[in-house]
Amino acid sequence: MDVENKVAIIGGGSWATANLKMLTDNAVPKEMYWWMRNAQAAEHIKQFKHNPNYLSSVEIKLPANNISTDLKCIVRNSTFILLNVPAAFLKEALSDISPEDLKGKYVVSAIKGIVPDENQIIGEFLHEHYNVPLDHFIVISGPCHAEEVALEKLSYLTIASADLELAAHFASLINTRYIQTIISDDIYGTEWGAVLKNIYAVASGICHGVGYGDNFQSVLISNAIRELKRFVDAVHPINRDIMESAYLGDLLVTAYSQFSRNRTFGNMIGKGYTVTSAQLEMNMIAEGYYAVNCLHQVNKNYKVPMPICEAVYAILYQKRPPVAQMQLLASQLN
Amino acid sequence: MDVENKVAIIGGGSWATANLKMLTDNAVPKEMYWWMRNAQAAEHIKQFKHNPNYLSSVEIKLPANNISTDLKCIVRNSTFILLNVPAAFLKEALSDISPEDLKGKYVVSAIKGIVPDENQIIGEFLHEHYNVPLDHFIVISGPCHAEEVALEKLSYLTIASADLELAAHFASLINTRYIQTIISDDIYGTEWGAVLKNIYAVASGICHGVGYGDNFQSVLISNAIRELKRFVDAVHPINRDIMESAYLGDLLVTAYSQFSRNRTFGNMIGKGYTVTSAQLEMNMIAEGYYAVNCLHQVNKNYKVPMPICEAVYAILYQKRPPVAQMQLLASQLN
Repeated sequence: MDVENKVAIIGGGSWATANLKMLTDNAVPKEMYWWMRNAQAAEHIKQFKHNPNYLSSVEIKLPANNISTDLKCIVRNSTFILLNVPAAFLKEALSDISPEDLKGKYVVSAIKGIVPDENQIIGEFLHEHYNVPLDHFIVISGPCHAEEVALEKLSYLTIASADLELAAHFASLINTRYIQTIISDDIYGTEWGAVLKNIYAVASGICHGVGYGDNFQSVLISNAIRELKRFVDAVHPINRDIMESAYLGDLLVTAYSQFSRNRTFGNMIGKGYTVTSAQLEMNMIAEGYYAVNCLHQVNKNYKVPMPICEAVYAILYQKRPPVAQMQLLASQLN
Repeated sequence: MDVENKVAIIGGGSWATANLKMLTDNAVPKEMYWWMRNAQAAEHIKQFKHNPNYLSSVEIKLPANNISTDLKCIVRNSTFILLNVPAAFLKEALSDISPEDLKGKYVVSAIKGIVPDENQIIGEFLHEHYNVPLDHFIVISGPCHAEEVALEKLSYLTIASADLELAAHFASLINTRYIQTIISDDIYGTEWGAVLKNIYAVASGICHGVGYGDNFQSVLISNAIRELKRFVDAVHPINRDIMESAYLGDLLVTAYSQFSRNRTFGNMIGKGYTVTSAQLEMNMIAEGYYAVNCLHQVNKNYKVPMPICEAVYAILYQKRPPVAQMQLLASQLN
C-alpha cells in the first residue's frame, strides 16, 4: 500500500503504551506520535523515557518532540490515528477534532467498548459523527493483555478492516518477534466480541466472588461464547467461526486471567463491594461496567436471549444481590 | 424406567469417590456397591468411613458389607456398573469378568481415556469385547473436578447414551443440590472430547512450563477446540454444538484449573522433567500421556490435521525438546 507510515497513538494508558512498544519494536521505518491528556505524564516520559503510570518497565523509544498534549497537532502530523482511550472518554477526547481533521486518515481503534449515550461501537460512531469511511477504519483486537506485551510474551493480534489490504498493511507495521497478526474483515464481530467479553469477565469475577468454583466457571464461559455468537450473528450475520482467537481467545484471556481488570471488578462486586467503592479501590475503569448498560439498551432492538449479560446488568444497575442473581442465572445455564 | 436402582462403582480413585458421594447424596432410594482393588483402602473405608487416599474429607455413607475387592460379586449384585478406573488399567480390572457377567446390565463409563493397544473409546471396547449393546451404555462427562464435588461446589455433568430415556434415568440417580445434569445422545463426541481435552491440558501445561503467558494460552485453547471439533466431526459426523459444556466446558476446566493433573504433568515436562520423573513425582496417572499415543495411532485412519496433539506426541514419545517443538507449534496457530 502506498501510504506514509506516520502513526499517532491517542491515549496514555497501559494498552496504549503496549501498542507503542509493538509499533516501535517493529522493523518497518515509521514516524510515531503520542498524545495524552495528562501533561505531567507527558513531561515525565519525555524526560525519563518511561510512562510513570502504566507499564513503567517499558522503555519509550520516541523523540521528545513527538509526544504532546495537543491533539490537533498530533493528528495533523499522522496518517494512522490509533485511538486508545476508554470508550467512556472517547467523545471528550475527540471534542477538539472535527470530521475535516480526520479526512483521508486511517483510524485504528484499540478501544474495547461502546460509546455511551450513542450505544454505538467505535466504527459506527466514527462513521456517523466523523465521516470516517468503513474502509478507512481498522480494529485491533486481542487476546492480548498489555502486561504480557511489556514482558514480550508471544501474543496474537487480530487486525480487522473492511479493506483487507489496509488491514494487512497495518499488521505489517505492528508485528514483531513477540506479536503475531491475524487479518480479518469482520469489523462488527471483532468490535462486539471485545465489548461482550468484558461483560463476561465481570460475570466470571462475580461468580468467583460469591464462591462458585472452576467447574461452574467453565460452564459459564461455555454458555458465554454461545451467547456472544447469538448476539453478533443477530447484529451482523456473516459466516464467522466464533471459536477463532479474536472471539473465543479474547474471551478466555479476559475471563481467566489474573490481569483482567473486569474480572477483578466483578470479583469485588461478588464479595460485596458497591460499584463505587470497587471502582475507587481499583483506580482503573472496568469497561464491562459501562458496556453492559449499553448492551442492555442495544439488545432492546435485537431481543437476543442473553441471560449472562442480563444477570450482570441486574446486579450492577438494579442493585440485585449477587448471590441470588447468580443462583437464578445458574438455573438457566446448560 | 422400570429398573432396579442398584449401582456399583468400580474403582477407588478421586473421581470414583466423588461419584459415590453424588449417588449417595441423591434422594432416590438405591443400593450402592463399591469395588476397589486395594484391600487396605477398602478395610480403612469400612472402618473409618473415609477413603484414605483420595478426597479424604468425604464421608462414605455405605454399609461395610457393600464395599468389596471381589469384582464378580459386586457386579452380580448390581444393575448399573459404573466404571471408574484409569483407561490404562481397564483391561486388567475387568480380567475376571466375562460378557455373560455383564449381560442385561447397564454399563456407565466415567473413564476419560482410550483403552491402550485396542485404541478404542470405552463404549466401543465394551461393545466389541463384552457384547454390551450401545443402548445399554452410558457416559458421564464433566466439566467436573472431583475436588470441587467434595466441596459441594455447583457442577454440571453431561449424561450421554444412545437411549435418551436411559440417560435421563441415570441422571435422576446422580443429580443433587450441587450436581446439575444435562442429557445427550452423543456417546462418541462426549467420550472423544473427554479424551482429547486431557491432551490439550498437557499441551497447556507444557506451554506454561516453557514460559508462554496467558495471551498465548488463550490462542492455544481457541485452536484446541477447533482441532477437537475437526476430529470428532471426522470420527462421528453428527450435528453437535462443540461449544456446549460437555466439550468446550470440559476442555476449559481441565486446561485452566489448578486441580488438573494433566496440566500439572505438562507443566513439569515443560520445565524439563522427564516423563518418568514427572509421573513418579505426581503419584497420579496423567491420562493425556496415554491418550496422545492412542490418538496418534487412531488418527492415522482419519488424517485430521491436529498440530497440537502432534506436538504433544512429539515431545512425550519422540523426545523432542519442548521449547523448540512449541515454537514450531506456535507458528501453526492462528
